[in-house]
Amino acid sequence: MHKSAGTGPVTLSEEDRNVRKRIGILVILLACMGVSLFAQESIESLGFSLDVVWLFIGAILVFIMQAGFALVETGLTRAKNATNITMKNVMDFCFGAIVYWALGWGFMYGKDALGGLIGTDQFFFSSMELTAENADVYKNWFFQVVFAATAATIVSGAMAERTQFKSYLIYTCFISAFIYPISGHWAWSSDGWLTSLGFHDFAGSTVVHSVGGWAALMGAIVLGPRIGKYVKGADGKVTVKAFPGHNIPYAALGVLLLFFGWFGFNGASTLTSLGGGSVWSGINISRVCTTTTLAAAAGAVSALIFSWFWFKKPDASMTLNGLLAGLVAITAPCGVVSPAAAVVIGLIGGVLVVLAVEFIDKVLKVDDPVGAVSVHCVCGIFGTLAVGIWANAPEDGILGLLHGGGFAQLGKQLVGILAVGAWAALTSLVLFFIIKAITGLRVSPKEEMMGLDLSEHKAEAYAGFQIFSNM
Amino acid sequence: MHKSAGTGPVTLSEEDRNVRKRIGILVILLACMGVSLFAQESIESLGFSLDVVWLFIGAILVFIMQAGFALVETGLTRAKNATNITMKNVMDFCFGAIVYWALGWGFMYGKDALGGLIGTDQFFFSSMELTAENADVYKNWFFQVVFAATAATIVSGAMAERTQFKSYLIYTCFISAFIYPISGHWAWSSDGWLTSLGFHDFAGSTVVHSVGGWAALMGAIVLGPRIGKYVKGADGKVTVKAFPGHNIPYAALGVLLLFFGWFGFNGASTLTSLGGGSVWSGINISRVCTTTTLAAAAGAVSALIFSWFWFKKPDASMTLNGLLAGLVAITAPCGVVSPAAAVVIGLIGGVLVVLAVEFIDKVLKVDDPVGAVSVHCVCGIFGTLAVGIWANAPEDGILGLLHGGGFAQLGKQLVGILAVGAWAALTSLVLFFIIKAITGLRVSPKEEMMGLDLSEHKAEAYAGFQIFSNM
Amino acid sequence: MHKSAGTGPVTLSEEDRNVRKRIGILVILLACMGVSLFAQESIESLGFSLDVVWLFIGAILVFIMQAGFALVETGLTRAKNATNITMKNVMDFCFGAIVYWALGWGFMYGKDALGGLIGTDQFFFSSMELTAENADVYKNWFFQVVFAATAATIVSGAMAERTQFKSYLIYTCFISAFIYPISGHWAWSSDGWLTSLGFHDFAGSTVVHSVGGWAALMGAIVLGPRIGKYVKGADGKVTVKAFPGHNIPYAALGVLLLFFGWFGFNGASTLTSLGGGSVWSGINISRVCTTTTLAAAAGAVSALIFSWFWFKKPDASMTLNGLLAGLVAITAPCGVVSPAAAVVIGLIGGVLVVLAVEFIDKVLKVDDPVGAVSVHCVCGIFGTLAVGIWANAPEDGILGLLHGGGFAQLGKQLVGILAVGAWAALTSLVLFFIIKAITGLRVSPKEEMMGLDLSEHKAEAYAGFQIFSNM
Repeated sequence: MHKSAGTGPVTLSEEDRNVRKRIGILVILLACMGVSLFAQESIESLGFSLDVVWLFIGAILVFIMQAGFALVETGLTRAKNATNITMKNVMDFCFGAIVYWALGWGFMYGKDALGGLIGTDQFFFSSMELTAENADVYKNWFFQVVFAATAATIVSGAMAERTQFKSYLIYTCFISAFIYPISGHWAWSSDGWLTSLGFHDFAGSTVVHSVGGWAALMGAIVLGPRIGKYVKGADGKVTVKAFPGHNIPYAALGVLLLFFGWFGFNGASTLTSLGGGSVWSGINISRVCTTTTLAAAAGAVSALIFSWFWFKKPDASMTLNGLLAGLVAITAPCGVVSPAAAVVIGLIGGVLVVLAVEFIDKVLKVDDPVGAVSVHCVCGIFGTLAVGIWANAPEDGILGLLHGGGFAQLGKQLVGILAVGAWAALTSLVLFFIIKAITGLRVSPKEEMMGLDLSEHKAEAYAGFQIFSNM
Repeated sequence: MHKSAGTGPVTLSEEDRNVRKRIGILVILLACMGVSLFAQESIESLGFSLDVVWLFIGAILVFIMQAGFALVETGLTRAKNATNITMKNVMDFCFGAIVYWALGWGFMYGKDALGGLIGTDQFFFSSMELTAENADVYKNWFFQVVFAATAATIVSGAMAERTQFKSYLIYTCFISAFIYPISGHWAWSSDGWLTSLGFHDFAGSTVVHSVGGWAALMGAIVLGPRIGKYVKGADGKVTVKAFPGHNIPYAALGVLLLFFGWFGFNGASTLTSLGGGSVWSGINISRVCTTTTLAAAAGAVSALIFSWFWFKKPDASMTLNGLLAGLVAITAPCGVVSPAAAVVIGLIGGVLVVLAVEFIDKVLKVDDPVGAVSVHCVCGIFGTLAVGIWANAPEDGILGLLHGGGFAQLGKQLVGILAVGAWAALTSLVLFFIIKAITGLRVSPKEEMMGLDLSEHKAEAYAGFQIFSNM
Repeated sequence: MHKSAGTGPVTLSEEDRNVRKRIGILVILLACMGVSLFAQESIESLGFSLDVVWLFIGAILVFIMQAGFALVETGLTRAKNATNITMKNVMDFCFGAIVYWALGWGFMYGKDALGGLIGTDQFFFSSMELTAENADVYKNWFFQVVFAATAATIVSGAMAERTQFKSYLIYTCFISAFIYPISGHWAWSSDGWLTSLGFHDFAGSTVVHSVGGWAALMGAIVLGPRIGKYVKGADGKVTVKAFPGHNIPYAALGVLLLFFGWFGFNGASTLTSLGGGSVWSGINISRVCTTTTLAAAAGAVSALIFSWFWFKKPDASMTLNGLLAGLVAITAPCGVVSPAAAVVIGLIGGVLVVLAVEFIDKVLKVDDPVGAVSVHCVCGIFGTLAVGIWANAPEDGILGLLHGGGFAQLGKQLVGILAVGAWAALTSLVLFFIIKAITGLRVSPKEEMMGLDLSEHKAEAYAGFQIFSNM
């Protein structure tokens, strides 16, 4: 219409057209950006959801490790204490969950104080209404509470068959509320002093396992051995008696459940970066599961072969502990070592646990009925050191002795091992002495002989079965 | 080229350039929109896949609750009935899956009829070719079938040690095909009349647990108590005998497997909204897992302490039932209450289950060997009411008595409890009477004394073991 | 500014404006494309992560099948061999994982040689630094290693109660390093000759189960029956003795754990296409889990009913094996058949396994203590054929006899069954004869009577329990 009216109008009509073009283009651009931005938001929310899914699968798998521990400990001890041991394992989770919500989480991940020493808020999830801002706390608490419960439950094995039930419950509240969270803050809070130092403990060889292992050692020492474990003969020589476990299939099922759960323990300790826009998290999960599998397998193989040569029999409980040794040892380094290194770490862990069990049992004469100290403390320390030796993760700046990192990382690992070990050992030692002084730690000899099922819980574990009482 | 030909041609050439520009811009815009739209489609398909993954993990976890129920019921009863109980638990899932595919799903989620009363199509997945349109049916069926199986399997515990195997199989087909799906339609179908009313039962305190619990109660009443359970003395006074369970570690493992599976039961009942473009689903899963953990833990703690004071011993089976009580009670409200409320709900559930077990056993004199009615019916009712008391989810319009909702929600909850309870109790009562009249419900006294393993299955559960027959 | 200067300048200023417009539009377009491309990259990495998550959940579920096998085999044999059986099941995974990393993976998925016959590199993950390029190897290895372990562990059941522990370990290394990977290469490597042929074995009815089943058959034949199994009377007639299993709840728990794990076995065999931008993978997982559930349930139901009619009792071990038969049979066709077909396949599998157990035990007189050959070999063959009969997946070009595909697919299935069967049977037969010649395969009669727990491992499984030795 305007076109025929000369240049003047042409210019005007051009502007007009330009305006229309601009509007048209803008509309398309805005639609386009809208779609893009909506996509971006959807991607972020999908990423958050995928993180939640993986983290929660991990947490659920770690949860079932409680059943694994219960079965291993029950299977490797005597029938007369089976109810007591399973009850301890169930209740340390239950009390632990409550106190970790009330106190532990706050000490571990609350606002830092004292330069990386302790967390100081979020107790009882106070002022933690469920909003998008606080979502991360809810998300992470569920993953962390099952780790706290793992540290606690390790101890029950070493203290099996002679500890008062109520004393055990008191202890378990303290480890879940104070001991584990505070050293956990050092190493796993972003503000913790070991974090700042560069100490690397991916899923908790030290933070979880050796904390539990040290407390187990202290508990076993303060309690003393089971009646009849170390018998002094007329010649003054001490005979070390073995009390065989009453159900090896339980122990084997327990170890397989622990192995199963460990894929969550290590695999989901990549935490919440799956939705972060990089394939690297997915890749790292692959590495973690591969190294975890190989180290566990290698631990069982070396413990089997080593015990076969030494004791002239393929010993079941040693082999099962060898598998667990491989798992504990790979827990710290699983994200920074190669599959071949994982095999080596597992092989060493499997031999180490056999040596440690014999040393603690025969030389130190500390009575640890299931070998918890050897598995969790000794192999937890070894696994933490293994980071300093075999780590090969230049992308994370973590290089071990064998990959050009010199002694730097090894030194940091040693600091973490010593600091956390000293903390866990001292606080649990003090705690056990206090409990011993106030409520008593151990059942009476008569109750111990009768078995804790009848003396503590007034009920047999296996009603109707003929079981020889001298076992 | 055209440029030098004066204004006329200039105008023309401008149009030309504009056309080219337009084309260029359009190409880029289209590419850009193409990428955006492709992104959008990818995001939607990723969202669908993530929904499937989470829902199926949930379903798989709920599935293993069958093993949990089997172990709890086996562990808390006598050795002579162990094969029978595990067989019942395996077969109620197997028969249940077939009839839920054939009939149950259709009654529950088929096209509504009679104003929210019953579903009427999709039986046998008829005309359900696997297309993108029908994908949701396939996806949801797998999640729903394991819930149906849970309702069914609850009953076996209350009817343990005296029910004919074939009668149990007949019953289990009916509950999975009719009883559970029809009341399920009321509360969980989008067209159900309880859904329309605003009744809120997130994962099934009422829909699953109290349906199973009411049927369990009717079954136990119609069957009558086990021989020797209630013995009338010369003085006319009735002595109530306890038959201790034959394997407490089984029961504990079973409870831990149930706890493990419950994370799927509650956690995946957020259903299919992870891919929906909002972080809220991920957040809500976090809340659900947190409240579930805390309520279960609190239930075990309060049952332990309460039974310890009352019976002067930390009773194993009461404590394990307390844990389950916490789980059942939090099942309805887990998505709408705070962690602190979850602790309170769990603590009450744990006390309630101990009171209910004693009341049903000693006062009502109904013989429920494992406490199924107390756990699933009583605590299922309590948990459903808890929504009306502690709910604090303004975003969903669900507010309880303590959060400004007045009695409105509580009233709706009560209607649901009464309607579903009446339906489940009456239909199962009629069903048990019909079975009793036609094939008989109970084994003969001789068979009961011999144990159902030998009398029904002609094989012991524990060949080779010395087991005292009077147990 | 330039506007007032006449047409010449007008033209110039227009160009100027156009330039500025172009720049503005380009900036917006680039921003827009940047967002789009970033979105695209994020979507791809999310897809990769989601694939990893689902695949690893699958792998972790398959892993726990080791516990399932251990419990089924332990439960269905005698108490005096329980430690030995659980140890075999733990160690075949551990040795298997190491050799599958060292050799098996390379033979199965390494660079093809000899026209689809064998893989030839990636042994020990050599030159497999963890980079984005090699990520798929790490990702897939973890999923594949648990499948390899499944094939290996099937054999232990058929060889239970009489095989030397060290001979079993030698055998298990060979099957995981050579036998399973090479036929696996044929059918599952993209270059394998059976893949090229169009042989369809979704999750391994043939590739995993019948390989294990054939090796189990050869092992049972070479070993010979357990002492006292087939007793020739004075009249020359052979009496077939049944040795009842010592723990039916173990067997039932084991079967439920296998069922649980099978959702990973079949469900995650959709492999890594969740992130691929199509809803189809999510839909296919739904189909796989639905058909798997229904076939397993139908297998248990038909075995129960069939054995009830035949033996006049609802036999526990037959029913449990029926459930497994349904699972093995649906493993090949689970992704290409309808739910109704799955029910039919399960029903047939359940009857077939009862017939096969009776035939192998009574007619062939091969002593397979747990029915491993009937479950894994016979039903594995049937399931593979079922693809050729009931497949209805036009989108994948797989149509069975009943859906218009004629005998074409059935023929391909038969070729695969025969080729893989011949390979597995012959190589394992040779292997067992070599082991027998060099180290011996069987324990001495005295050791067998004493039980392998005491003779091989020097420790009872159930210390303290009264167990009758003639069992």
